Amino acid sequence: MTEHSLWRFSRAFHRAINERQIADVAALIDDDVEWAIYGPIDLFSFFGARQGKDAVLEVIRQMAENFRVRRFDRESIMLGVDSAASMMRYSLTSLDSSKPISVRIAHFAQFRGGLLTRFRVLVDSFDLVEQTVGYPIHLPRIAVAQ
Amino acid sequence: MTEHSLWRFSRAFHRAINERQIADVAALIDDDVEWAIYGPIDLFSFFGARQGKDAVLEVIRQMAENFRVRRFDRESIMLGVDSAASMMRYSLTSLDSSKPISVRIAHFAQFRGGLLTRFRVLVDSFDLVEQTVGYPIHLPRIAVAQ
Repeated sequence: MTEHSLWRFSRAFHRAINERQIADVAALIDDDVEWAIYGPIDLFSFFGARQGKDAVLEVIRQMAENFRVRRFDRESIMLGVDSAASMMRYSLTSLDSSKPISVRIAHFAQFRGGLLTRFRVLVDSFDLVEQTVGYPIHLPRIAVAQ
Repeated sequence: MTEHSLWRFSRAFHRAINERQIADVAALIDDDVEWAIYGPIDLFSFFGARQGKDAVLEVIRQMAENFRVRRFDRESIMLGVDSAASMMRYSLTSLDSSKPISVRIAHFAQFRGGLLTRFRVLVDSFDLVEQTVGYPIHLPRIAVAQ
């Protein structure tokens, strides 16, 4: 039984972030990949939508310049023949501040012939923002139990 | 072919929110359901973890008191035999302010015998916070292209 494309991509992606070895992950990304990380692009310039392998590799390179992955736990996962979705909790270190950052994300991935063709990531962005700026953001209480 | 549990749950859930008809969705939730919406619980008291059907129905009731669903688009979806995951974009109306709110979420759902047993939701929370408080939250730029 062949290994699912997700596991190969996940290993190569984490190696790219932590060891700045981009070649493995580059070999697993389709030239016409559609990519989006939904989150505050004002805070992280590597969030947002990208089209094509070169643009995506640049995003991964920027991530590698900003974070290391200390650990990750997959809390939910679904695997299809050529697709995968998971909810993950990452423990990161910010290289700029050496601060630990913990963030939950969800991703949906599509593969074709082992190559990533579509990737959508949602980030628990408010939590990430507060940890990154390093202070709590005051919020009015909008919805309360009635 | 039987309809997937997700479609039944989705219809009943939206009916509960928009018409405050809780009975349909109550019939589709397992007594011991595990439920979590990851997001800023300071802003929305119905975010967070809940255990058991009564607690979950109370969450749904609180949502119905705060929002109407104008429309939703499923941007990504995976269906398993007894599981489902999707990324969705919701157009909501805040009942308090009558303001339109647009928010992206990802959910992972597990069913058993047609009943929801586990539900995990991640919200693009920063975007939601800015729309809800009604003003942009100033952020320092942390990560820039180098």
